[in-house]
Amino acid sequence: MPEMKSSRKSVAKPPRPRDSHRGKGPKSKSKSGTRLEEVLRSAANIFFAKGFHATSIEDVARDVGMLKGSLYYYIKSKDDLLFKLLLAGIEDGDAFIAQQIDPDGDPLEQLERAIRAQIDYIIQNKVPFGLFLHEFDSLPGKRQHKLTAVMSRYNNRFVDLVQKAQIQGKLMNGEPWIIVNGMLGMCNWLYRWYDTDHSSDTEQIKQVFLEMIFSGIRKT
Amino acid sequence: MPEMKSSRKSVAKPPRPRDSHRGKGPKSKSKSGTRLEEVLRSAANIFFAKGFHATSIEDVARDVGMLKGSLYYYIKSKDDLLFKLLLAGIEDGDAFIAQQIDPDGDPLEQLERAIRAQIDYIIQNKVPFGLFLHEFDSLPGKRQHKLTAVMSRYNNRFVDLVQKAQIQGKLMNGEPWIIVNGMLGMCNWLYRWYDTDHSSDTEQIKQVFLEMIFSGIRKT
Repeated sequence: MPEMKSSRKSVAKPPRPRDSHRGKGPKSKSKSGTRLEEVLRSAANIFFAKGFHATSIEDVARDVGMLKGSLYYYIKSKDDLLFKLLLAGIEDGDAFIAQQIDPDGDPLEQLERAIRAQIDYIIQNKVPFGLFLHEFDSLPGKRQHKLTAVMSRYNNRFVDLVQKAQIQGKLMNGEPWIIVNGMLGMCNWLYRWYDTDHSSDTEQIKQVFLEMIFSGIRKT
Repeated sequence: MPEMKSSRKSVAKPPRPRDSHRGKGPKSKSKSGTRLEEVLRSAANIFFAKGFHATSIEDVARDVGMLKGSLYYYIKSKDDLLFKLLLAGIEDGDAFIAQQIDPDGDPLEQLERAIRAQIDYIIQNKVPFGLFLHEFDSLPGKRQHKLTAVMSRYNNRFVDLVQKAQIQGKLMNGEPWIIVNGMLGMCNWLYRWYDTDHSSDTEQIKQVFLEMIFSGIRKT
């Protein structure tokens, strides 16, 4: 069981919306882009605090100071709003990992970089990551499939590195998927215990996790 | 990110309620004991499927074929129902781990037993464990503190073993809490990916995870 504390009190840092014009500075964003960002940010906070099912479109409209009818200019439905949020979160995470690694580099070195990036990503995105876990099941099957496809791409970055290192004889044998899920589980779990009463020094966590993953806990 | 699929379709296996007379067989159970179990089982399924906030006491009453008023014979409120469920889950998990280990045995051997037990527990309790994660924040602070106290006892079983093995010089240095959260993260994460399209052979998962944890992934 995890160390837990209420994460509902945290300030949500929702995923950046896909529809905005990233990296060009606020001035280059269209009005609808920034307004959509605001809607997504508000929805992330309210969905996480109240739960998706208990949140109405009116709640989000009120929070951003819009009429319900105007909100439908940006989103088609409440399902659509949740889907946009979760998709933006997973695509941002995937892009973040992709930026940190060179798929043609030494696989073990790249795996270390990917793990460091995963730890950073989870710590910086606890609320949207929690929302993703808690509300994934709230989406209809077709939209889950779309998210699952992006997640597969995400996971495959790790699996590819594991397989390459195995081929080089530098990594333990064993089903790559299980190895990757083990590593990601260690990192993803941070969303529940990071920043509780216990040690939360990010660099210390990375060092311990990397030593555990690469060398194991047993002293020989 | 995890491999995910909808877990709402799974058959819920809720934690056994604390109020029942365990291990004495159905005949020894009081009528209210078995009825409470039924209420908890129903609530676990409905809370997990619809979300806590969107579920009414009437939903649970209807599911177990009782009048709403009669339900209040077993529970004080919806909050109380959720609290009873989550407490039963964590106490059951704690008791399960405690049964599998001998705190006076060789710490590394016992740690291996505890990890095996944790994997079994998560795999066998995916739905109540998910409910725990998703709805912990729905409880008021005082009740969260009560759960946190039981979780600390739970985690401390692992921390004690890590510390003992460190003192014997058999285990890597490093903050025991971080090491334990890393190990538990690997195991707990199974609630999201076990039984998806990929390999779900429990013994295979245990072997890979134990090799990763004890010896690390890097071949030397």
